Amino acid sequence: MSHPKLLLTMGDACGIGPEIIARLWDSQEAPQDVCVVGDLSVMRRAVRQLGLSLPVARLDAPDEAAPPNCLPVWQPPGLPADLLSAVQGQVDARAGAAAAACIEAAVRAVQQGQGLAIVTAPIHKEALHAAGLPYPGHTEMLQALATTAGQAPPPVRMMLANDELRTVLVTIHMSLRQAIEAIDVPRVLETIRIADQALRSAGIASPRIAVAGLNPHAGEGGLFGDEEIVHIAPAIAEARAAGLQASGPFAPDTVFMRARRGEFDAVVAMVHDHGLIPVKYLGVEQGVNVTLGLPFVRTSPDHGTAFDIAGRGIADASSLRAALQMARRLSRAG
Amino acid sequence: MSHPKLLLTMGDACGIGPEIIARLWDSQEAPQDVCVVGDLSVMRRAVRQLGLSLPVARLDAPDEAAPPNCLPVWQPPGLPADLLSAVQGQVDARAGAAAAACIEAAVRAVQQGQGLAIVTAPIHKEALHAAGLPYPGHTEMLQALATTAGQAPPPVRMMLANDELRTVLVTIHMSLRQAIEAIDVPRVLETIRIADQALRSAGIASPRIAVAGLNPHAGEGGLFGDEEIVHIAPAIAEARAAGLQASGPFAPDTVFMRARRGEFDAVVAMVHDHGLIPVKYLGVEQGVNVTLGLPFVRTSPDHGTAFDIAGRGIADASSLRAALQMARRLSRAG
Repeated sequence: MSHPKLLLTMGDACGIGPEIIARLWDSQEAPQDVCVVGDLSVMRRAVRQLGLSLPVARLDAPDEAAPPNCLPVWQPPGLPADLLSAVQGQVDARAGAAAAACIEAAVRAVQQGQGLAIVTAPIHKEALHAAGLPYPGHTEMLQALATTAGQAPPPVRMMLANDELRTVLVTIHMSLRQAIEAIDVPRVLETIRIADQALRSAGIASPRIAVAGLNPHAGEGGLFGDEEIVHIAPAIAEARAAGLQASGPFAPDTVFMRARRGEFDAVVAMVHDHGLIPVKYLGVEQGVNVTLGLPFVRTSPDHGTAFDIAGRGIADASSLRAALQMARRLSRAG
Repeated sequence: MSHPKLLLTMGDACGIGPEIIARLWDSQEAPQDVCVVGDLSVMRRAVRQLGLSLPVARLDAPDEAAPPNCLPVWQPPGLPADLLSAVQGQVDARAGAAAAACIEAAVRAVQQGQGLAIVTAPIHKEALHAAGLPYPGHTEMLQALATTAGQAPPPVRMMLANDELRTVLVTIHMSLRQAIEAIDVPRVLETIRIADQALRSAGIASPRIAVAGLNPHAGEGGLFGDEEIVHIAPAIAEARAAGLQASGPFAPDTVFMRARRGEFDAVVAMVHDHGLIPVKYLGVEQGVNVTLGLPFVRTSPDHGTAFDIAGRGIADASSLRAALQMARRLSRAG
């Protein structure tokens, strides 16, 4: 009998992913609905390094029932054999390849009904790169994996959320120069639509979406740049014409504060750091990254591999716990 | 006998400046060391609209001793005669011209030893523009006023500060495209130097200055833009070679959080909104704008004219009060 669960990919074996995963089971609130997709030896090392007396249970399939009181791990086929010899805290092509293989296996499992949603522990872009994988991050890789052969990839957007703020990004992993060039009416409009749809799926009947400008003071009426006039305002007008509660463009320096105070349900931000600075400002521990627009739910913690502290057992699992909670909520509502 | 005080310019007569100024005197903590530089009729209207029984005292010079228990106002010569007919909450060239005249008079007074420092209530850029003044904001106007004929203007930088974060901006009132073009080694280095000098003047012996990158993830080693490699890192290296405690470039999305937690005394931000989003995120009430690099101290509240609520008596004077407090501290330490 199939028991589909939240699939939690272990991330880069040389980063803090394995240990923050193991940490989740070392509490009174050990998750009952999660299967780790990762390397058994790496997960056993993480448990050992944390000094936990936690058995690692090997599942033969991601939807196999897990025995109680252990850490259930499904090791997909084809992982590098000598992963433990990759040094913790360092970029290693084998760790990059293994991280990517786990993500791909998790996506295929969800596509086949063997998983409910995907939660990803941090990967390292340079390790992916060293493994010959062309993706700058999870988001782009998941988008590629969700693309049906011969069809266009589904448009996706990154949302960062914590208890008090949700931001959805028009552009992410590119230079600021490229981001400015990438801003146009279709891209802004699509971001508003994807944000609206995601918030509706999460139970908000008519989401209030604020759209931030690109330039200081949202361009000050054209004095400080015209992207607001040429691209952003027309996209907002089109969204409103379609019945969406979109407003703006607002000055980037105050719109996030206004959303935090409850004026909006989400803020659409033009560039990576406009959106991420306020979400992370009060602490990254509770921030969750959600990929919107995929045909499945995917969340991740709002931090990286933290190579500087990997293997030392001091990494904080709060954001990963929050990411699981968000995936649980979204996959049940969806 | 001369009694030089903090000089508080009234700002745009159609905005909230006059009423938040009057509000300061309506408390047990009415300032004793401040002279308002403004229009007498506008300040009297503000007092009346707030329903205060507060006499407005006309000073003939900014350093004249002020009688107790009143709002001391020095009206500089040459203000438009019919300022009261400019509608509150609307852009008016007369209000722009009056605001500019008050700023210029305050600067001249400080230069002549008739004032200790300048605190500016908000002006409206479009009103300045309508009055034919070419300045995008206070900062540029003050810089021009501080320039000695025949010499280069003093390099200035804007600092935004509240109780937990100080950010100093490399670029401010220009489009994001122009800001990217404006970033080079001399400009970044000068910002680090100005920040260092200002923090030393404020009593920090060896300021720890974090320099934020421009691009997502500070360029991710060149994958997301090369400004960090070409301009920012060399400027930091030069600052360090000169003995300054500068570090970076750091990812913009986490450096402000790190500074908030105490790791740095200030963050140098490349563009307006990277620096202003985190300072304003927890509320603009306590944020103070400080112009660094001028030959005198100048602070201002971290908000605008708020035309939407001008004249209604509901504007919050907290940020203006914080700006006065900051000017007091800096002008005594300096």
